[in-house]
Amino acid sequence: MSRKILIVGAGKSTSYLIDYFLEKSTSENLHLTIGDLYPDAIASPIKNHDACTVVRLDVFEDEERKSAIKQSDIVVSMLPARMHMKVARDCIAFEKHLVTASYVSEEIKTLDEEAKKKGLVFMNEIGLDPGIDHMSAMQILDRIREKGGKILLFESFTGGLVAPESDDNLWNYKFTWNPRNVVLAGQGGAAKFLQEGTYKYIPYHKLFRRTEFFEIEGYGRFEGYANRDSLNYREAYGLEDVLTLYRGTMRRVGFSKAWNMLVELGMTDDTYVLENSKGMSYRDFTNSFLPYSPTDSVELKLRHYLNIDQDDIMWEKLVELNLFDSQKTITIENASPAQALQQILEASWTLKDNEKDMIVMYHKFGYELQGKKHQIDANMVVLGETRTHTAMAKTVGLPVAIATLLILKKKITTPGVQIPLQKEVYEPILRELQEYGMVFKEIEVPYLGYNTESVLR
Amino acid sequence: MSRKILIVGAGKSTSYLIDYFLEKSTSENLHLTIGDLYPDAIASPIKNHDACTVVRLDVFEDEERKSAIKQSDIVVSMLPARMHMKVARDCIAFEKHLVTASYVSEEIKTLDEEAKKKGLVFMNEIGLDPGIDHMSAMQILDRIREKGGKILLFESFTGGLVAPESDDNLWNYKFTWNPRNVVLAGQGGAAKFLQEGTYKYIPYHKLFRRTEFFEIEGYGRFEGYANRDSLNYREAYGLEDVLTLYRGTMRRVGFSKAWNMLVELGMTDDTYVLENSKGMSYRDFTNSFLPYSPTDSVELKLRHYLNIDQDDIMWEKLVELNLFDSQKTITIENASPAQALQQILEASWTLKDNEKDMIVMYHKFGYELQGKKHQIDANMVVLGETRTHTAMAKTVGLPVAIATLLILKKKITTPGVQIPLQKEVYEPILRELQEYGMVFKEIEVPYLGYNTESVLR
Repeated sequence: MSRKILIVGAGKSTSYLIDYFLEKSTSENLHLTIGDLYPDAIASPIKNHDACTVVRLDVFEDEERKSAIKQSDIVVSMLPARMHMKVARDCIAFEKHLVTASYVSEEIKTLDEEAKKKGLVFMNEIGLDPGIDHMSAMQILDRIREKGGKILLFESFTGGLVAPESDDNLWNYKFTWNPRNVVLAGQGGAAKFLQEGTYKYIPYHKLFRRTEFFEIEGYGRFEGYANRDSLNYREAYGLEDVLTLYRGTMRRVGFSKAWNMLVELGMTDDTYVLENSKGMSYRDFTNSFLPYSPTDSVELKLRHYLNIDQDDIMWEKLVELNLFDSQKTITIENASPAQALQQILEASWTLKDNEKDMIVMYHKFGYELQGKKHQIDANMVVLGETRTHTAMAKTVGLPVAIATLLILKKKITTPGVQIPLQKEVYEPILRELQEYGMVFKEIEVPYLGYNTESVLR
Repeated sequence: MSRKILIVGAGKSTSYLIDYFLEKSTSENLHLTIGDLYPDAIASPIKNHDACTVVRLDVFEDEERKSAIKQSDIVVSMLPARMHMKVARDCIAFEKHLVTASYVSEEIKTLDEEAKKKGLVFMNEIGLDPGIDHMSAMQILDRIREKGGKILLFESFTGGLVAPESDDNLWNYKFTWNPRNVVLAGQGGAAKFLQEGTYKYIPYHKLFRRTEFFEIEGYGRFEGYANRDSLNYREAYGLEDVLTLYRGTMRRVGFSKAWNMLVELGMTDDTYVLENSKGMSYRDFTNSFLPYSPTDSVELKLRHYLNIDQDDIMWEKLVELNLFDSQKTITIENASPAQALQQILEASWTLKDNEKDMIVMYHKFGYELQGKKHQIDANMVVLGETRTHTAMAKTVGLPVAIATLLILKKKITTPGVQIPLQKEVYEPILRELQEYGMVFKEIEVPYLGYNTESVLR
């Protein structure tokens, strides 16, 4: 009898995940079932693989969902986070392990007790971010603490970017993940974090003006802006007494300052609908955020409104997006500004077939050991291979795949709703990820405390 | 038998309202009952007046509320808007007219049919703004339209300010109304309005940087920033085809630019709670919105963050609020930034006993008549008399009082849930308000279309 894995949802981050199981199907005696709403979209080499069955699966159809889950030994849900719950309940009912790359929701948490009672591993947040960030951070934090070190500072940044070879626009950015999330990033409340023992708050309209910088050997400089939720994992990571705790998103230097222009204009607002959005030119869209003038051009009004000098490269970044074009039009009915902006950005920032993405992650660990202060910086860069085999799919899919097999092989056995913070989990996964080129480079640097200017060179 | 008026809620805007009824109690044969949660706080001359009864009334106590309403001929609810509904339902049940100065809520609207069926006048939005703004605007709009004019532009601004004789701080502002509403002004979505046929949107963080100016003879210059809801009354005012529709709030020149500094810092945010707010110094409060630095002062960080030159008066405005004081502390537990800021502002901006307030209102009407374009500007200034007899209490209370008596005298008879847009309502009220010094000054000016720079001099 082969071990039966069910993947629910075969979206764009599943290429490496599926390859992993199929490559090991003989050696590990695996059978893979892929359940997706659109089975026809799945590539022939996968569909025709001996160890693979593809079925149409609508997660809202109780019968087909239950039947597929019942027949499996473990379920990997790659659905959007809000759809996991139906799958998770069935996993409890039919006593199946569950693996997801999504944040643990309040709903999923309610299943913890039952999962424990039935000895089921419900592993979540085991993709890239969340996922590899947890594991790589905990590995170094645990090592420092085992030596007797006291953690003073922890910072962690991740970015999904375009690979240097495909990086050919002024923003040094293309969409490699859900564009809507990029447009809405940082909204919904002030960012909150800790710097040298003081709580700090940044309102949304200043978020992209409070960046810090990173240097990665061979890849140059990056910048980071704060996530809203820097303190979320304080207790989970055992960082109750840390002085600096800061988590964020990485971009190429200059992106955030330019993005802030769109924020200042109000183009990222998703809370209301534009009048007459369908058919509105990009230029009229831009003009709707600027004061009326009987004489001045949209260009001059915008330069004046945002105080952009004649020779400022920021200006060229706006022009590159065609924001002043009176021919190109929004095609969405009742679009919010954010939806209209997304359409405009997708026209410029969509990866072409031959273009590649890149994942960067950067951690800083400050600690005190025997009266002396130290700092370790650790970073990872992963480049995409093809349009389907992206760095994003690799870094999200492989930890999920490895964890799934480890659970099947009873190497990971602690039951309950969890995230990968335990050595039992992160050690074997990080070790195997290294074989796939996901390696963290560690550098000892002088401890400076929190300082946005302390760029490693 | 005297005509019995019940006032529910004797808050600070009721001084003129109560005086009006008591002064006319003999000539108009009125008896006034004042129901309030704290009857002891009501001044003796009122309590001891022959035509007045003061009772303790908790609007959430059904029995005492119903009994008071049952015994009256008309009810004036001066409660906070969210508390009107219980009173309104009883007015339907016991067939009493109702007058409020509050916005018509969706809830109140549902009573329209029943009120009409029973012949009851439910008059709302008959204070200052909303109230006098509706009436004075409709009077001029109707007059222009009766002459055959076509309205092209309508702008309307109101401000509750400090009277020139008491205006002694750098912000030219003191609280004359609910401070919380001032701190939260403009939040909750983008401002939307029409300028020369184009819809325009301003995000919150830019709202106070997009002002227009007004000049009022004898009072100098004012500025106005947009309300969120400029288009709300488009249909009600009959302005479906208007090219420019803009409503806003008036301040003294320079207030908005300075206020925007507080917005930029994030101090007006009411969506989260500060850590350790109780006992936090004003200086630490300010510092929580600035980046950490091991060396730089809070002052320098703020100057740099907001780009404030050494000789910029904006700086003195911040200093005047004691924002860098390390001795003064927030005393509120779990305060949001907005709550903490309110406390800081109240320490500076509370009217002293001998200080007076001022109400300003400014309308612009642009129209076309027989092929020619015209513009009428109309403004009103009302000064407070004493600490209790404020301009705010006068401009809110007197229209309510006058309307109440007109309904009692059957001069206003159209039943249903309504706001004062009909000639039957606004003509007699505006006429009587003139006797109390609430007079609009009209000036014919050249029509310029929408133009923030077109200040009348």
